[in-house]
Amino acid sequence: MSSQKPSIPKGTRDFIPTEMVRRNFIFDNIRKVFQSSGYVPIETPAMENLSTLMGKYGEEGDKLLFKILNSGNYLSGIRDAGYGMRDGGWEMPELNTYTRHIAEKGLRYDLTVPFARFVVQHQHELVFPFKRYQIQPVWRADRPQKGRYREFFQCDVDVIGSNSLLNEVELIQIIDSVFIRLDIKVVVKLNNRKILAGIAEAIGAPEKLTDITVAIDKLDKIGLEKVSEELETKGLSGDSVRLLVPIMTMEGRIQEKREMLDNLFVNSETGKKGLEEISEVMLHLKNLELQNKFEFDLSLARGLNYYTGTIIEVKAAEVTMGSLCGGGRYDNLTGIFGLPDMSGVGISFGADRIYDVMEELRLFPESIESTTKLLILNFGKDEEKYGLQLLAALRKSEISSEIYPEASKLKKQMEYANRKNIPFVVFAGQNEISAGKLTLKDMRSGEQKPVTPDELKNILSK
Amino acid sequence: MSSQKPSIPKGTRDFIPTEMVRRNFIFDNIRKVFQSSGYVPIETPAMENLSTLMGKYGEEGDKLLFKILNSGNYLSGIRDAGYGMRDGGWEMPELNTYTRHIAEKGLRYDLTVPFARFVVQHQHELVFPFKRYQIQPVWRADRPQKGRYREFFQCDVDVIGSNSLLNEVELIQIIDSVFIRLDIKVVVKLNNRKILAGIAEAIGAPEKLTDITVAIDKLDKIGLEKVSEELETKGLSGDSVRLLVPIMTMEGRIQEKREMLDNLFVNSETGKKGLEEISEVMLHLKNLELQNKFEFDLSLARGLNYYTGTIIEVKAAEVTMGSLCGGGRYDNLTGIFGLPDMSGVGISFGADRIYDVMEELRLFPESIESTTKLLILNFGKDEEKYGLQLLAALRKSEISSEIYPEASKLKKQMEYANRKNIPFVVFAGQNEISAGKLTLKDMRSGEQKPVTPDELKNILSK
Repeated sequence: MSSQKPSIPKGTRDFIPTEMVRRNFIFDNIRKVFQSSGYVPIETPAMENLSTLMGKYGEEGDKLLFKILNSGNYLSGIRDAGYGMRDGGWEMPELNTYTRHIAEKGLRYDLTVPFARFVVQHQHELVFPFKRYQIQPVWRADRPQKGRYREFFQCDVDVIGSNSLLNEVELIQIIDSVFIRLDIKVVVKLNNRKILAGIAEAIGAPEKLTDITVAIDKLDKIGLEKVSEELETKGLSGDSVRLLVPIMTMEGRIQEKREMLDNLFVNSETGKKGLEEISEVMLHLKNLELQNKFEFDLSLARGLNYYTGTIIEVKAAEVTMGSLCGGGRYDNLTGIFGLPDMSGVGISFGADRIYDVMEELRLFPESIESTTKLLILNFGKDEEKYGLQLLAALRKSEISSEIYPEASKLKKQMEYANRKNIPFVVFAGQNEISAGKLTLKDMRSGEQKPVTPDELKNILSK
Repeated sequence: MSSQKPSIPKGTRDFIPTEMVRRNFIFDNIRKVFQSSGYVPIETPAMENLSTLMGKYGEEGDKLLFKILNSGNYLSGIRDAGYGMRDGGWEMPELNTYTRHIAEKGLRYDLTVPFARFVVQHQHELVFPFKRYQIQPVWRADRPQKGRYREFFQCDVDVIGSNSLLNEVELIQIIDSVFIRLDIKVVVKLNNRKILAGIAEAIGAPEKLTDITVAIDKLDKIGLEKVSEELETKGLSGDSVRLLVPIMTMEGRIQEKREMLDNLFVNSETGKKGLEEISEVMLHLKNLELQNKFEFDLSLARGLNYYTGTIIEVKAAEVTMGSLCGGGRYDNLTGIFGLPDMSGVGISFGADRIYDVMEELRLFPESIESTTKLLILNFGKDEEKYGLQLLAALRKSEISSEIYPEASKLKKQMEYANRKNIPFVVFAGQNEISAGKLTLKDMRSGEQKPVTPDELKNILSK
């Protein structure tokens, strides 16, 4: 076999150890918060049937699904379907139809659709309200660019089977706790789809709710003027747009917004309901004295059209970055799989963006870089036996420790310790072993002192 | 959209929470042992270029790779290659050639080849000897059957860049520690490929080493007679087979085996080297007083042909089950990617089989089933506010706790606690709240007692 220059598919990543310990720091903290609130883990397979995935993410989404070639002789499926059997040449078949004959499975695109499928499929094994979290990779055949990958992790947490707004409150508490642990200051933006529906009614365009939310969702990116243009091309009247603009851009305190909306919603039951819901959620949050700010943001829309109530988005307070977390309430996610009337609410943390913020603000604690606490230097065959026994005792106490596997030059062994950020090395040569006193060197201060094996264990346990 | 009955691709699995906590119990214990021995984590993408994967697992393996359809209009690749353009009908193209035009990526088949690719690609970022672990799913388009899945997890741990036999010793210690933690009694079987090579020389068939190892590897499954037949069909002479059989089936103590081999290897340097290696490893192991048994097993071969030294396989001592862990030393794994002379040694734990053994022997601790420690019963809006504040305090101390999200009938709330294995519920109604004494109920004993919030926290912290 001739040697080949190794590479990986574009948009995918390897994670080297220094990246992994940082990523795990994020995942571990998120997981601890999820667990302390009584959420339980599930996992679903990387591959789903394409029938489960197709049509759930819009036409664009269907194109971005990674599809898996059927195993065995998939070509017989093509022949049986009549492709390539015509006389006089072969016309290019229609892509989607052709694909259907050679690919039945695809990689999951997000964790939401698999979760809905899971809830329906396992409904009799689950305890409702079902509080689950799921931390797994997803795949999208998007054009790779800075900060956008074809394989990335989502950390989703949802409650399904309960209408109570306490669930919204709990999820926002989770957001607060996660970002306190990670030491990132954030702002939690809140809105409610029923308020947006009420506004659509009030400006005389109730049937345009989806177009309005999709357009508003871009307000941050493309600005007010372009959003107005887009709305007019979508068939919203000039009058409606003129009524909408001041509502979306209204500044001021919550009380003022509420009064404005109260007036606007005199004839909209949906709008009133939305306003009640957000008021209740915000009152609870106020009582809980969260450390991070939360605010009612009328311009928050979130593009996904399965949301029906509260919507949530989290931004870093100190750096400019897309949202670090987002979600909302959905009333009928499981309906497409045959289980109607299951209201749920959930949020998703974006591990990659959180990583980038923590890098930029240098928030990763230095201690996580030292994965090994102690290196025993190797002086040769005679000393190895002692070293191995010492190691066994340390490891039993979960002290991460190593012996250098060869009796190489001391300089090389020390360099290994330095490059691996190991804070302590121990010299255990014949003299030290017979005296029962090893020499412990602190790699940062350079200080050396004699210690017994028990003292060594105590120092490293700290 | 009409509703569809949900399902997942055959050979794949969902994991419900009770399965997840058990799987995590296994993974967490394995991970702790890896970390305490100074191994650091890496991850590689699910998709690799097919050029990285093809040809590494034999012809059969190539067929079992899941291949991913190129995104965009992959059909133009087919047309450009001239397929389907002939007059007078379309002949079935050759499958592999056709596939090459429509699929460039595949799902990883194991963690070993991606690891070799990773080491070569990142060699300048890594510290050698490089001690890494990797716990990720792999995919194989195998025929699904009991205990065999198309998506399953591997837990690999390897040292690369060191010839020292201390690495072998460390890995066997890791095996011992993992199975002590999981409370599974195992037998660690050891052999050395150099010994097998020495035997092949001694019976006059040095060029048949691969056939011999492949055949011997099946000894457990198909028995001695069939193995002998297979060897003869592979071209081994009757004399050679007759010499081989008593060696492979020799019972007795290590010392006797060693003497027999010493005689056999008078003219085989390779055989002598193998015998030296295994003796050194076993001497170290004896000094370390492992809790699990280890034995020199001449019939251990392991099918993979990249092994060049020590080979290791672990069987459960108390149930009949395939191997729970296996591995060995390889001298040239990274050679195919352009980095020769990197010796390494590694083992892989099979999480699914370990799970099955633990289920069969009922080894999962009961405590892991109680993911939530406390449920606060919900008596209505007025009490919710108090409940939420109590929860915030408990969760800050990492006590996993919940409030039932609705003021449903008490029976329903209690049933939720029971079904979710929550060991304690607390009654916090108006009277309890104003008296500062909540009623705590132990769901197992049925016992109830009044507690202050501080007492509650102390009880649950235990």
